[in-house]
Amino acid sequence: MIKVGIIGGAGYTAGELIRLLINHPHVEIGFIHSSSQAGSKITDVHEGLFGETDLTFSSEQPLNEVDVLFLCSAHGESRKFMDANTIPESLKIIDLSMDYRHKESAQGFVYGLPELNKKAIQQAVRIANPGCFATAIQLALLPLADKKMLKNEVHINAITGSTGAGVKPAETSHFSWRDNNISVYKAFEHQHLKEIAESLNQDKSNLNFIPVRGDFPRGIFATAYTECDLSVEEAIRLYNDFYKEAAFTFVTDKNVDLKQVVNTNKCLLHLEKHGNKLFVISVIDNLLKGASGQAVQNFNLLFGLDEKTGLNLKASAF
Amino acid sequence: MIKVGIIGGAGYTAGELIRLLINHPHVEIGFIHSSSQAGSKITDVHEGLFGETDLTFSSEQPLNEVDVLFLCSAHGESRKFMDANTIPESLKIIDLSMDYRHKESAQGFVYGLPELNKKAIQQAVRIANPGCFATAIQLALLPLADKKMLKNEVHINAITGSTGAGVKPAETSHFSWRDNNISVYKAFEHQHLKEIAESLNQDKSNLNFIPVRGDFPRGIFATAYTECDLSVEEAIRLYNDFYKEAAFTFVTDKNVDLKQVVNTNKCLLHLEKHGNKLFVISVIDNLLKGASGQAVQNFNLLFGLDEKTGLNLKASAF
Amino acid sequence: MIKVGIIGGAGYTAGELIRLLINHPHVEIGFIHSSSQAGSKITDVHEGLFGETDLTFSSEQPLNEVDVLFLCSAHGESRKFMDANTIPESLKIIDLSMDYRHKESAQGFVYGLPELNKKAIQQAVRIANPGCFATAIQLALLPLADKKMLKNEVHINAITGSTGAGVKPAETSHFSWRDNNISVYKAFEHQHLKEIAESLNQDKSNLNFIPVRGDFPRGIFATAYTECDLSVEEAIRLYNDFYKEAAFTFVTDKNVDLKQVVNTNKCLLHLEKHGNKLFVISVIDNLLKGASGQAVQNFNLLFGLDEKTGLNLKASAF
Amino acid sequence: MIKVGIIGGAGYTAGELIRLLINHPHVEIGFIHSSSQAGSKITDVHEGLFGETDLTFSSEQPLNEVDVLFLCSAHGESRKFMDANTIPESLKIIDLSMDYRHKESAQGFVYGLPELNKKAIQQAVRIANPGCFATAIQLALLPLADKKMLKNEVHINAITGSTGAGVKPAETSHFSWRDNNISVYKAFEHQHLKEIAESLNQDKSNLNFIPVRGDFPRGIFATAYTECDLSVEEAIRLYNDFYKEAAFTFVTDKNVDLKQVVNTNKCLLHLEKHGNKLFVISVIDNLLKGASGQAVQNFNLLFGLDEKTGLNLKASAF
Repeated sequence: MIKVGIIGGAGYTAGELIRLLINHPHVEIGFIHSSSQAGSKITDVHEGLFGETDLTFSSEQPLNEVDVLFLCSAHGESRKFMDANTIPESLKIIDLSMDYRHKESAQGFVYGLPELNKKAIQQAVRIANPGCFATAIQLALLPLADKKMLKNEVHINAITGSTGAGVKPAETSHFSWRDNNISVYKAFEHQHLKEIAESLNQDKSNLNFIPVRGDFPRGIFATAYTECDLSVEEAIRLYNDFYKEAAFTFVTDKNVDLKQVVNTNKCLLHLEKHGNKLFVISVIDNLLKGASGQAVQNFNLLFGLDEKTGLNLKASAF
Repeated sequence: MIKVGIIGGAGYTAGELIRLLINHPHVEIGFIHSSSQAGSKITDVHEGLFGETDLTFSSEQPLNEVDVLFLCSAHGESRKFMDANTIPESLKIIDLSMDYRHKESAQGFVYGLPELNKKAIQQAVRIANPGCFATAIQLALLPLADKKMLKNEVHINAITGSTGAGVKPAETSHFSWRDNNISVYKAFEHQHLKEIAESLNQDKSNLNFIPVRGDFPRGIFATAYTECDLSVEEAIRLYNDFYKEAAFTFVTDKNVDLKQVVNTNKCLLHLEKHGNKLFVISVIDNLLKGASGQAVQNFNLLFGLDEKTGLNLKASAF
Repeated sequence: MIKVGIIGGAGYTAGELIRLLINHPHVEIGFIHSSSQAGSKITDVHEGLFGETDLTFSSEQPLNEVDVLFLCSAHGESRKFMDANTIPESLKIIDLSMDYRHKESAQGFVYGLPELNKKAIQQAVRIANPGCFATAIQLALLPLADKKMLKNEVHINAITGSTGAGVKPAETSHFSWRDNNISVYKAFEHQHLKEIAESLNQDKSNLNFIPVRGDFPRGIFATAYTECDLSVEEAIRLYNDFYKEAAFTFVTDKNVDLKQVVNTNKCLLHLEKHGNKLFVISVIDNLLKGASGQAVQNFNLLFGLDEKTGLNLKASAF
Repeated sequence: MIKVGIIGGAGYTAGELIRLLINHPHVEIGFIHSSSQAGSKITDVHEGLFGETDLTFSSEQPLNEVDVLFLCSAHGESRKFMDANTIPESLKIIDLSMDYRHKESAQGFVYGLPELNKKAIQQAVRIANPGCFATAIQLALLPLADKKMLKNEVHINAITGSTGAGVKPAETSHFSWRDNNISVYKAFEHQHLKEIAESLNQDKSNLNFIPVRGDFPRGIFATAYTECDLSVEEAIRLYNDFYKEAAFTFVTDKNVDLKQVVNTNKCLLHLEKHGNKLFVISVIDNLLKGASGQAVQNFNLLFGLDEKTGLNLKASAF
């Protein structure tokens, strides 16, 4: 069994991670650290686990007793944690924050998008787990970028579920406000643009990205289009070829809807051609392929396990 | 024009009240006081008013300059306000909190349920506006109580929208948690039981009341049943008779659903008889008939206006 | 009083129209025709009207007894109706379908977007009421088109509520499927593109439009951006100037969300500049400004009434 | 591997069953019959399966080639199927309809509630899988019935998700109507009362049951109360003792909410005592513990497998 430690255990991504790891056949949870919830039962904080675990949140962080550490704290906290603690050299680390995603400040962390970096991940010690918007959008465009076919502006719109904004209550996550409501935030300026641009070898200004707050808790529904010389058949062939080894990313020939992937680690892509524009729909679950599911996928790769171990999830579908 | 002042202007009931008063033909808003939002535009805080008003929140409370005062602060604050300020004797007051609803501490406030107390309201100076659950449940049972036919236990279940819990974000009003979720709180012990029991001349222990948090923002859907000797036809006749002068409360012969009253000041009642049980469904909009709409109805009665003035609202229906 | 007839009275737009007209001070409803519901009470079909009307659906269409006719049938049915019936010449007609919206087949119908065509509407006899997507998108771009500033491609994404798809149950309007779900349909090829392109004097191929099915019943949330030389201040000035006479269309300097307009006849616009792109958010209620509310606005203009008569609606806000 | 056949493969319970069986380590799907969808891909009909199966719906029903048959057709169809076909004697059958649930017409089918009938199920050939409301309500009351402590009337309210009403679109499952709406149906007369009364050894008239349509797709939230002499501690001890062998039914000492069980096969129970009333909350997922999950649990018992095989599901939680 591989022993796992979790830092920042009270947030949404940690909860989802625990729900996954509790059923993972090769995992034993060593500790789940939380400064705010130390001493509380896991089941008092995280929905859906009652009857499955008696674990409590720990105030200790015995790094020497685990094989791998998941960092689930807020952005900025991971770097503080790394600076403040003596990290055993052999300790594998998967960081779910954005602190080590960008090349110039990665400090040895490998960007953990398996569809882009599988080999590097398999040989890595430390992983920077991608952002949720970033995952959906990169998977929509990577095959084109790989063939240097992203030569024109890209027009991206992506609608996110409310869990993307975290557990801390805010005006825009108040049920009375958000239910049946839609709004835009950080148009053209979302912080994920940087990691997207790096993976796609694009200038950020080439990527027009409108992030939208949706009135649902889970999922990212992204669309992207750009001028492209390929016919739709050629594009589908290109995408199928690029993702032929991917464990969770699939191209469908039918229109897709968000709930096809909710509560799974999958990304579904659908391609259409309209005039000279190639149009791509990309859907993921923001807490799974966009966060904790991808973290487990990276964990599997780090430890030489089958990439899908513990991730054959039943879609909620409804 | 009747000049109106509002205390506690930044909350949900104040927002709804402003949305009503802005279109009321006999109202001029004198001031809207808010300690938290003084100086801000009303439209920066309350949805749906842009283009309709340039008012700002005031830090002043010039009580002498208005004819009527609506108290929209949290429970407990109204009494503090009354104690701390010199209230002009002629100033009419409509208090939306629970501070003066109970007989032993009413201090001259008349309980403002028009279906029960219309004449007293018309002659009153100060009104204690009923609670939302209390309104829906009393209207379901008043005709029986009036005829001393509430002789057995009553079994009540009522599902409330999230706006009932106010604007302050909380764990149970977080969209990620509340969406598609249901939960019970304060079973058998909700604070509205006291005002309900007083109006119905019942012992509280006779009223079994399960309050439920619903996953919708507006409305209260209440059911109640009790043993009753009347046939359904007799019961319907009794209810129709009792409510024949009511401006907003109606008995329907078809099954009702919540959205039939959302965004209106109406209460719809539907009666069925099953075995020896009389079963009543009662639906209202918690922010309107359950709060600010009823406050305006009381305002109309206080000032001798037609009870429906400013309350012919288009139902949202969807 | 102006006597009104309604054809196709059982659908969503007719229901909304009746909810409006019932409170309109200058309207008397002559008949509401429905082939499917003839003989039924209006309140048995349309939510939210109980207690407000005793009208029933009619199987007759006494065109000579009314001053104005609203056509609320499905697309294609209005033209059939006009061809099959002898229409009194003086009878004013407001058609909510798309049958007469396009110039080459308008047959004397005036395109009823008051912000574009107010004078023509005031002098018209027959009005083609605009589509819901079309209204939101045109209002986002008209000031630029008016100044011939739409010289580059426009990138539009608009999310619609489920009522836009009508009362007839379908797979994509099934609650179990649509709740918390998102999907695209008719990307780049929506039928409203034609009326939008005509009003904006654009080639359709210049307008990249992604229509999205949202998981809410009411409203359209549209975004649009295009390269533009104006600064954001200049653009705001241009828009404010263009809409200075508009009764319901407003430019706000704060970010907008959909519920600010739900259950109102308003359109709110918000402008931002990012790099060389002018970015516009436009929100309306699809059943009001996008259908029946705009129809009443056109009715007011046709009969020389104040444009806002009967349309000072309380926003639902929640 | 155990070979499985499915009849009525296009409905919601069949979809959920397929999503479960596809990951069940001891199952091989032999055929999925559907008269309406024969020839179509499973993934064209059932959400969430893309990338996991290439199966198609079959027009054949080769009963001799499978070890067990799941009947997922509408109520009434199972009995027709059994009458019309020659059923191999050794073929195990799990019927999800209500056709064989009642004792007088069970024809050898064992009522498949493992918490009540585990031993009988293990030795059975044919299983009548319980109803969703019936499961939630029985689990709330079985420990009392077992001790003959159900001596007084029971007051039950249960709110169901829309998937309970099936895939066929209807007025009450139309998104535009159901979203943010609540309604009651079949008060005191729901068809599940019969199986509940049989299991609890009660007269139906003793069980006052209000079924409610909720505005969410998955889950049943049930409350029940009755006069009871036990203290809450005694009641909790009784329930814990009764369910100590149960694989999926748990008593919690904290208030429960519906989403704690959504997308799991669990039932959570919470007990309170108020005056002389014992109050129980019971939550399940209607498609899992209330239908297909319980069917797989019964399948495991029929074939001597661990009861939880294939049912360690990740809760969706949000």
